[in-house]
Amino acid sequence: MNSATFVLFGATGDLAQRKIYPALFNLYIDRKLSPSFSVIGLGKREWTESEFRSRVEQSIRTFSRRPAANEAELNAFLDLFRYCRLNVAIPEDYAQLLERVRQREQQLGIPENRVFYLSVAPELFEIIAHNIQASGLGNVSGWKRLLIEKPFGRDLQSARALNEQLSSVFAEEEIFRIDHYLGKPMIQNLQMLEYTNPILQALWKNQYVANVQITASETVGVEERAAYYDKTGAIRDMFQNHMLQVLTMFAMQLPRHSTSEDVAAKKKAVLASLRQLHREEVNHNVVRGQYASGHIDGKPVAGYTEEPGIDEASRNDTFIAARLWIDNYFWSEVPFYIRTGKRMAEKSTRIVIEFKDPLDKYSRTNEPTSPNLLIIDIGPKEGISFQLNVKDANSEIKTEPIRVHYDAAQDDVPEAYENLIHNALAGDPTFFARWDEVELSWKWVQPILEAFENQDHMIPLHSYEAGSDGPDASRRLLEEDGFHWWPAFDSDTVKVSHLVNKKEEERKYESVR
Amino acid sequence: MNSATFVLFGATGDLAQRKIYPALFNLYIDRKLSPSFSVIGLGKREWTESEFRSRVEQSIRTFSRRPAANEAELNAFLDLFRYCRLNVAIPEDYAQLLERVRQREQQLGIPENRVFYLSVAPELFEIIAHNIQASGLGNVSGWKRLLIEKPFGRDLQSARALNEQLSSVFAEEEIFRIDHYLGKPMIQNLQMLEYTNPILQALWKNQYVANVQITASETVGVEERAAYYDKTGAIRDMFQNHMLQVLTMFAMQLPRHSTSEDVAAKKKAVLASLRQLHREEVNHNVVRGQYASGHIDGKPVAGYTEEPGIDEASRNDTFIAARLWIDNYFWSEVPFYIRTGKRMAEKSTRIVIEFKDPLDKYSRTNEPTSPNLLIIDIGPKEGISFQLNVKDANSEIKTEPIRVHYDAAQDDVPEAYENLIHNALAGDPTFFARWDEVELSWKWVQPILEAFENQDHMIPLHSYEAGSDGPDASRRLLEEDGFHWWPAFDSDTVKVSHLVNKKEEERKYESVR
Repeated sequence: MNSATFVLFGATGDLAQRKIYPALFNLYIDRKLSPSFSVIGLGKREWTESEFRSRVEQSIRTFSRRPAANEAELNAFLDLFRYCRLNVAIPEDYAQLLERVRQREQQLGIPENRVFYLSVAPELFEIIAHNIQASGLGNVSGWKRLLIEKPFGRDLQSARALNEQLSSVFAEEEIFRIDHYLGKPMIQNLQMLEYTNPILQALWKNQYVANVQITASETVGVEERAAYYDKTGAIRDMFQNHMLQVLTMFAMQLPRHSTSEDVAAKKKAVLASLRQLHREEVNHNVVRGQYASGHIDGKPVAGYTEEPGIDEASRNDTFIAARLWIDNYFWSEVPFYIRTGKRMAEKSTRIVIEFKDPLDKYSRTNEPTSPNLLIIDIGPKEGISFQLNVKDANSEIKTEPIRVHYDAAQDDVPEAYENLIHNALAGDPTFFARWDEVELSWKWVQPILEAFENQDHMIPLHSYEAGSDGPDASRRLLEEDGFHWWPAFDSDTVKVSHLVNKKEEERKYESVR
Repeated sequence: MNSATFVLFGATGDLAQRKIYPALFNLYIDRKLSPSFSVIGLGKREWTESEFRSRVEQSIRTFSRRPAANEAELNAFLDLFRYCRLNVAIPEDYAQLLERVRQREQQLGIPENRVFYLSVAPELFEIIAHNIQASGLGNVSGWKRLLIEKPFGRDLQSARALNEQLSSVFAEEEIFRIDHYLGKPMIQNLQMLEYTNPILQALWKNQYVANVQITASETVGVEERAAYYDKTGAIRDMFQNHMLQVLTMFAMQLPRHSTSEDVAAKKKAVLASLRQLHREEVNHNVVRGQYASGHIDGKPVAGYTEEPGIDEASRNDTFIAARLWIDNYFWSEVPFYIRTGKRMAEKSTRIVIEFKDPLDKYSRTNEPTSPNLLIIDIGPKEGISFQLNVKDANSEIKTEPIRVHYDAAQDDVPEAYENLIHNALAGDPTFFARWDEVELSWKWVQPILEAFENQDHMIPLHSYEAGSDGPDASRRLLEEDGFHWWPAFDSDTVKVSHLVNKKEEERKYESVR
């Protein structure tokens, strides 16, 4: 286990408090951090060490999935932390930081392995990278790594510019771009799921699959992020990164003995096989929406343009649905439908694989049967289900759809940030977004951004009621192909699936439909 | 719905009380019996109508899966019943019966549709069939059908003789041979399960299947059936009929638009494709066992030869395990393992399909993975499960086997006898054993019977402890092929399958193994 220094820019911020400190703590109690690990928190504020540590302590007590076994354990963990006031624009502050880092390295007797975690606004990435280099912080006898959060640019051009700036300081293999969807256990599970299950591997291709549906729905609105979100939209905030990464993780076909390089190569190949949309085709394949007022969990909520900080004339998208095609051997002819939105009925991230109907059905009577589904629940619940048909025990000829279900309990499972920080410390880039992936994703999204911004293309902005499953236009996208969206979450009726009496069965079927 | 007369030989017997009356009653309340249905119960005893009806009433109150909605409903049902004393050997009794049947037909205004249900010892089949013909009971203007219970002969020769006797009175399509395993909902479900589920259909063949295991285990011993059982054994009582029928229902591949004739043809084809054993090969492919004393549910139970009515030198088999091969396009090279026994650890009928390991495994580390399984529970619990592998959330490289499970509730599901009587009344022979199936089954079993009886072949009779899963030799049968028996029932640890902590996971894995 590598001892290292974890230099955290944005140590007083929200992400650090909600995710990073709890992740470090859980890695610590699982003994996945070296006991001589050094954390240097950076912020503009004049905090004392003890103010900083009590902030970290509060974070652990509030947000950690597991409590400390005892005070001694918690104190030993807090003892890893030091605070350093730093203004990212002032070179002298970096000199002071370097001194502090070195001091701790000597004190702990650890090599010059340094992780720079940039949990700050992306506008600051450049100046920080520059100063890391200029100050000598980046001149290490061990290794150095850069961890950065989204967004990585706001279009193809700005992403390329940002990448150039970073690459002057860090090599590609030193840059770990966090896409926290890649840290979710079920996403990390996807490749193994296919690869270690011959029965899934047999079915994981266009010969059997009719379509694939990926949904990431949120119930929250714009919250306190109005200024950022209103110039970002669902297309940049969710679609270009998280949704295309999930699609890629699902669709890639790994070789035997796969390494992180294989994974990266296969992901790149999938993204390169995405059929490019021309601006004129955007209208036919992409639906954008914006939430109007409505109800979430029975409570009235405001529409997007009524939210504090949002211009009442804003044409920003809070919902995106799109049809994509992967033109490769495994997936040609299989439409992939992706949707993501805020203020939808339920918080859920789910992949539904709908299988083709059999060529020749069991048909003493031509009773219709429901399609087979493989449902992969990524969050907040995690699980795997198949939808199958069984004989209705009360009829000779009818079938009823049932669910065979595996519910992954979540209490004892590492959170996304734990997985990602652990991987980054271990130098494993498997579950991070490589530059070529980011670039190809922006390339695919670019015509959509342009069509949205250019009035000539007349891409409608569909309104949808808060608490719904998005605008009607999203439904029509699938109806054109003879499909429909499968629910992104299960009502209670569906979850407990039994051979039941007629009425219950019909109700169940309805709710599945 | 056909009105008919249901002539029940053995109306005072145990099967009638436990199964047939409750089945008729549940068909009645589901309106699957015509309101002008006529039941004539026959027995040697001098019962009054009211004695008979109170016997039927008692049967409903004790054994029906659903109670009567009210007294009126129960009385209306009992009103369908008449009793007639009959000695099966006396022709005059049949003349009287005929008169009684006709009287009720006229009274109810129903056509001459007559079902003769022989719930009596098989020695009586011949004389009853003869007298049905001689008395004119079988000369009907409508239709006539014969329902008979097992055993259908005790070897190939006696089965052929019995069939000849019956065929002089009834045509093959009028004979409904009951194998109550064919009435079980999950067995009736098997063909639809494959046929309406493209993902199962894709996998239901030797390309993906490593082996198939069929277990029917009982916890009971010989009970009150010593005289019958000791000259019958597991090979005749369970294997030749139930087990080979379950195998056949699983292995057949139905054509598009299948009819009951298609089903019969496909079943026959499977049985005809069973690789015939020569007497010399029996020892290598068949294991016979006899239970010794042991414990069931923690209570001590006697060994077979200590049971009342069993000769202490008896070499009768109470356990059979066998390896079979189906030499057809779909199943060649796939071993089928069948086992059935009394006084085993748990009552369970289950099919386990073990899938082949992938050609190229996910192997950054060559961590072993567990095989994929499809588990079909037929009784007493009904359900479907897959065993899959998922990534162990606490490890980058390990997988853990999980179960996705569908538990079919049983409260509202017709019992086997309801299904079978309903099918027979509707004239649907799909779930009955046709003569050619019975004959092919005896043909396959015949060399085993001969080897068992001939000391020259030296087939060992293995002792096994009551409450175990059979003799060790049964395990060796699979070990020769590199396989092992999967449990025929799930311990509680396996049923609730979660991503859990390490210890629980290992325990679970052990219990799956």
